[in-house]
Amino acid sequence: MSKKLTSRSEDYSKWYNELVVKADLAENSAVRGCMVIKPYGFAIWEKMQAELDKMFKETGHQNAYFPLFVPKSLFEAEEKNAEGFAKECAIVTHYRLQNDPDKKGKLRVDPEAKLEEELIVRPTSEAIIWNTYRGWIQSYRDLPLLINQWANVVRWEMRTRLFLRTAEFLWQEGHTAHATKQEALAEAELMNNVYATFAEKFMAIPVIQGLKTESERFAGADETYCIEALMQDGKALQAGTSHFLGQNFAKAFDVKFANKEGKQDYVWATSWGVSTRLMGALIMTHSDDHGLVLPPSLAPNQVVIVPIYKSEDDLNAITEVANGILRNLREKHITVKFDSRTTHRPGAKFAQHELQGVPLRIAIGARDLANGTVEIARRDTLTKKVVALEDLTEKIEGLLEEIQASLFNKALDFRDNHITEVDTFDEFKKVLETKTGFISAHWDGTNETEDKIKALTKATIRCIPLEGDVKEGVCVYTGNPSKRRVLFAKAY
Amino acid sequence: MSKKLTSRSEDYSKWYNELVVKADLAENSAVRGCMVIKPYGFAIWEKMQAELDKMFKETGHQNAYFPLFVPKSLFEAEEKNAEGFAKECAIVTHYRLQNDPDKKGKLRVDPEAKLEEELIVRPTSEAIIWNTYRGWIQSYRDLPLLINQWANVVRWEMRTRLFLRTAEFLWQEGHTAHATKQEALAEAELMNNVYATFAEKFMAIPVIQGLKTESERFAGADETYCIEALMQDGKALQAGTSHFLGQNFAKAFDVKFANKEGKQDYVWATSWGVSTRLMGALIMTHSDDHGLVLPPSLAPNQVVIVPIYKSEDDLNAITEVANGILRNLREKHITVKFDSRTTHRPGAKFAQHELQGVPLRIAIGARDLANGTVEIARRDTLTKKVVALEDLTEKIEGLLEEIQASLFNKALDFRDNHITEVDTFDEFKKVLETKTGFISAHWDGTNETEDKIKALTKATIRCIPLEGDVKEGVCVYTGNPSKRRVLFAKAY
Repeated sequence: MSKKLTSRSEDYSKWYNELVVKADLAENSAVRGCMVIKPYGFAIWEKMQAELDKMFKETGHQNAYFPLFVPKSLFEAEEKNAEGFAKECAIVTHYRLQNDPDKKGKLRVDPEAKLEEELIVRPTSEAIIWNTYRGWIQSYRDLPLLINQWANVVRWEMRTRLFLRTAEFLWQEGHTAHATKQEALAEAELMNNVYATFAEKFMAIPVIQGLKTESERFAGADETYCIEALMQDGKALQAGTSHFLGQNFAKAFDVKFANKEGKQDYVWATSWGVSTRLMGALIMTHSDDHGLVLPPSLAPNQVVIVPIYKSEDDLNAITEVANGILRNLREKHITVKFDSRTTHRPGAKFAQHELQGVPLRIAIGARDLANGTVEIARRDTLTKKVVALEDLTEKIEGLLEEIQASLFNKALDFRDNHITEVDTFDEFKKVLETKTGFISAHWDGTNETEDKIKALTKATIRCIPLEGDVKEGVCVYTGNPSKRRVLFAKAY
Repeated sequence: MSKKLTSRSEDYSKWYNELVVKADLAENSAVRGCMVIKPYGFAIWEKMQAELDKMFKETGHQNAYFPLFVPKSLFEAEEKNAEGFAKECAIVTHYRLQNDPDKKGKLRVDPEAKLEEELIVRPTSEAIIWNTYRGWIQSYRDLPLLINQWANVVRWEMRTRLFLRTAEFLWQEGHTAHATKQEALAEAELMNNVYATFAEKFMAIPVIQGLKTESERFAGADETYCIEALMQDGKALQAGTSHFLGQNFAKAFDVKFANKEGKQDYVWATSWGVSTRLMGALIMTHSDDHGLVLPPSLAPNQVVIVPIYKSEDDLNAITEVANGILRNLREKHITVKFDSRTTHRPGAKFAQHELQGVPLRIAIGARDLANGTVEIARRDTLTKKVVALEDLTEKIEGLLEEIQASLFNKALDFRDNHITEVDTFDEFKKVLETKTGFISAHWDGTNETEDKIKALTKATIRCIPLEGDVKEGVCVYTGNPSKRRVLFAKAY
């Protein structure tokens, strides 16, 4: 492959940017801030989608599709939401191009073709969806309404980074309607739990579940649940959010239902989403200076087999052994590729699969043929061993499970070693300068203090954890009373 | 359910529009020409996607994702393509909204926030993709490049109809690059074949494969393959297209590769797509005056079980029997739902499942419990029979296969009975007035004659079939020599 990666210690940010491109995950496009997700990157996203989609359906949700565009007047109906997204929208103002008959193929906008009402390219779909739900919900029999959408959304961000922050990104957005506040709150919690389970079980990323402070909440939400992860550079990353929207959207869009007693009431709402940003979290949690490291659960190829041969005869014999391995592994639903390309030497193949994070690499050479062995290399530990062909399937199954668990535990250890309790503001600032990670500290509960700490340190309150220490104390900044510790960090 | 459907004979177009809404497939949205695909409709689309995606992957394609927006200058690079889509694009001109501090939540476009270069919302992605491929293709080793994208596209159509023609629609678009003309042609043919197989095997829609005439080709293509289906009103529907793009896009975007001899050459291209329009074809091919009829292969629920009970005890006993059936059917990967809703009476459930086209409905009542039977109703034939519980799974498997085959054969008979060979223009016009369907006639091969026939009859050349009668003759309109018959029809 091309030149070596920049190391993490040298320049973490540069390491990330290079890795995304060199591992063939994504690249910048000709459109400012919009990315191209390349086939290898998209294959990982597809695996994530498939697992999440299954989890959504198992919890009773159905998929649907709503328009890309939102008429401006609808977008403005819920004021807080409109205000929150006001500074990052792309706007369609014209609907049609005219040919200039003199210059074939050259287009110009006809000034007559201005839309009567401007259209916002959806940054999120609450407005268009709640405007639709008004027609779908009349009675308690229509509730709960549990819908999810897989879609592209656009937020015209000024500073973008592949996967982490792009002007267009892919995501899913759940939008549910309920008869009671309790049900809606339970739904918001349930889906935050689904996200946590997905992050830990499939992405091997330990997350902390919590609530956002008022200033960090989704615009238009009464409460925002979140999952927060810690990257290797000690910065936090918000990996998913689930919002209890109260009756805000129901009131804005006049969505009422007749309850069992026949009385009219506004419905209660939630929305929840994760995006291609998760790809950034996945990359940054596990990868190393050699390239991508993928948990087996999400690797497009869990195993790759590379033949090492000098003669056509050797290749034929190796192919025969490889085909047997392929058959056995596929029977166990292990994804495996036989890399028999003749255009690349084994060394180049090794380098590519290492860079692209294939969890297990099997090499088969002439000596292996003679001995009835293969060489297995683990991507996460960069260790190799020669093993007998006997029970190879079971060995590989075991190794894949071991890698999945090991990646999670390694990330968990790192995360747990980077949560520092502090009781003074001096300690607070010192941790940010030296160790980074999460800072567990008391806070007086006011926006004002939160803002001041942010202005002084760039650290924000990532969440008020749902679990853990709930002892009272005094605010690390003001000394005022505090009900419990919250988690601060610098964040992506 | 609500009022009866308009019948097909009364008003075919009204029947279709009502059916789409009443069967909960889709509805119009607040955005002109854009639809909401409701959960039941989307579940069918998801099944279609899953099968197509599998077929694409089996033929070596990978998915990727490219930006929604295309800078205007890129969009114009391939002149014919730009010209072809010039009259139906939505254009983003502004990138950002500003808050008006005096009116909280009210937005206005800041006139300063005009984009330097206008962005076209993709009507199709050749331009942005070929601009990207320039960076991906250097040598013959990078070819073939076989990529597909599932995406939303926007064509600002003036007259829209749910699924058949909407301003925004969902589709997949394959974009491939090849070293030779022959390979690219073979790819275009292969994918048209994949579409034909999918239409016939899964949608139970017989299709004719053919080539488009020059005037009906995709803008920018050298050759367009298509599959054409016939709807129950005798109008044709283009269900999928696969384009051989020659070197047009490679030249427009300067995409060259070094061949094995080290010489530089432009690559050869194809693109191919099917869209949510297929939903319209599916609905119109099989459905009747009672509602939707779905082929079992694509039905979200292949079987629904409705309990008929007066006492709680009956319901418990029926539930036990139903659970056994559910278990057995699910083991055979048959999708089945037990409709135990207490909010609806059996009659309402029957009506809903009939309207929504569930292929098989099983009713279980007290008498069935006593006799060890169930009642099975077939949606396609509207026939019922009482059968013993014994071997029920096998019976249902058999019935589902029978329905799938029967729907295809019925549509095939209809189609074959609506292909009329004519040799005079009087006959031609008479068929259009009476029988409709495809007209197989000789044509002299000129755009001029095609245009005249279209102006006089509204019938267009749907395709030059790849198979069938290739005897020479004389043009039905001009009397000039013709190499073979082509298929004319009025079309959607």
